[in-house]
Amino acid sequence: MSLKAISSKDAAALDKDLMEVGGWSLDQLMELAGLSVAQAVWKVHPLSAGKNILVVCGPGNNGGDGLVAARHLAHFGYKPSVYYPKQGKNELYQRLRIQLENLSVQFITDFPTALQGTDFLVDSIFGFSFGGPLRDPFGEIVSQIESANVPVLSVDAPSSWDIQSGPPKEGPGARFMPSSLISLTAPKPCVQFYKGRHFIGGRFLTKGIADRYGLDLPAYEGVEQVLEVGVDAEGKL
Amino acid sequence: MSLKAISSKDAAALDKDLMEVGGWSLDQLMELAGLSVAQAVWKVHPLSAGKNILVVCGPGNNGGDGLVAARHLAHFGYKPSVYYPKQGKNELYQRLRIQLENLSVQFITDFPTALQGTDFLVDSIFGFSFGGPLRDPFGEIVSQIESANVPVLSVDAPSSWDIQSGPPKEGPGARFMPSSLISLTAPKPCVQFYKGRHFIGGRFLTKGIADRYGLDLPAYEGVEQVLEVGVDAEGKL
Repeated sequence: MSLKAISSKDAAALDKDLMEVGGWSLDQLMELAGLSVAQAVWKVHPLSAGKNILVVCGPGNNGGDGLVAARHLAHFGYKPSVYYPKQGKNELYQRLRIQLENLSVQFITDFPTALQGTDFLVDSIFGFSFGGPLRDPFGEIVSQIESANVPVLSVDAPSSWDIQSGPPKEGPGARFMPSSLISLTAPKPCVQFYKGRHFIGGRFLTKGIADRYGLDLPAYEGVEQVLEVGVDAEGKL
Repeated sequence: MSLKAISSKDAAALDKDLMEVGGWSLDQLMELAGLSVAQAVWKVHPLSAGKNILVVCGPGNNGGDGLVAARHLAHFGYKPSVYYPKQGKNELYQRLRIQLENLSVQFITDFPTALQGTDFLVDSIFGFSFGGPLRDPFGEIVSQIESANVPVLSVDAPSSWDIQSGPPKEGPGARFMPSSLISLTAPKPCVQFYKGRHFIGGRFLTKGIADRYGLDLPAYEGVEQVLEVGVDAEGKL
């Protein structure tokens, strides 16, 4: 299956369209995005592979998607914990945190120890709006993740990667290749440098919006909120 | 499986708790409730049984759940249409309507004709806050639904039924027995008068809230947002 990529600029415009003329709230979009992330975890890392999931959240909407995913993972029977070193100011993030605390999800502070003890990691640090470079403490965090022997699902893009040109030439993230990636709404151009299982999520795209941005409508199956997409023989999505 | 029922008063207090102290927005709760309704339709009426689904929406949150369900049904491959004779004022309902219009979902006005042409009907007219009696035009609508030979999924409660004491003794709804029912969060007391397939949805209940209201946590499976629950030998849930 081939899916066209969307640039960082167009992805931002698309989100704005959805909210300003499409009738969507950020709460709704994030709910469906986060649910698709949790369903991707279920596919690549079933409960039998270990229930401890460490969700690393950045300060923006990618981190918010991770918070929603952590909630659904808790409902699915996992034991998620969250590392959220720079909590964003949006009141939605605060509410998502309360929801998690009411499910007894731990917000950890000792990242190296949590990383050693987890079965799986969700990288929801940065998404399509990442413009680099990595600021503290995220450079150190990405270095630790890429050195750890833990399977990783990155949300929207591997954190530290340039959305257009992929992995940095050197420094944190230069060797970062998550075992799984979930692109939200549409793949980002950097996905051409990615090798691993690739999913698409965010089942809210309409034909009108897809046409406006030259995107494909993913062929989701049944009631699934996530779809695994492959890479073709030429390495293109 | 046995699930305790929640009174109308407690269901209202529970919703208030979720939003005032639980960190939830109505957008989030309605998104998950509506998604569970759409998943229940998928279980009782797969695409192969006919794609035309008529979603009848009341003026309040039950109608809002129906609007969200209609959107997910469109994404699942159905051809939903919506009958929404008294649109509520909440801006969320207006946004949900815009989302549906962007998916080319029809808002119909000729209910009798639509009822004749549909394969399935979702009754999201009234839920746990219904206090009766049925006001125009809903008495006539319920009469037409109960006379039609169309399978129906009722959302939260069969519309016209008293939440505590069940079907009215006479008039519209006295003979109304939908083929399926989805209770949101927890069954309502009137479910004891119900015969048919019964589902529970709204996978956001925490143990803390369940304990506070003396409810059971439904044992949802996998990533499902809906669970079919049975009736025991004594007719109790």
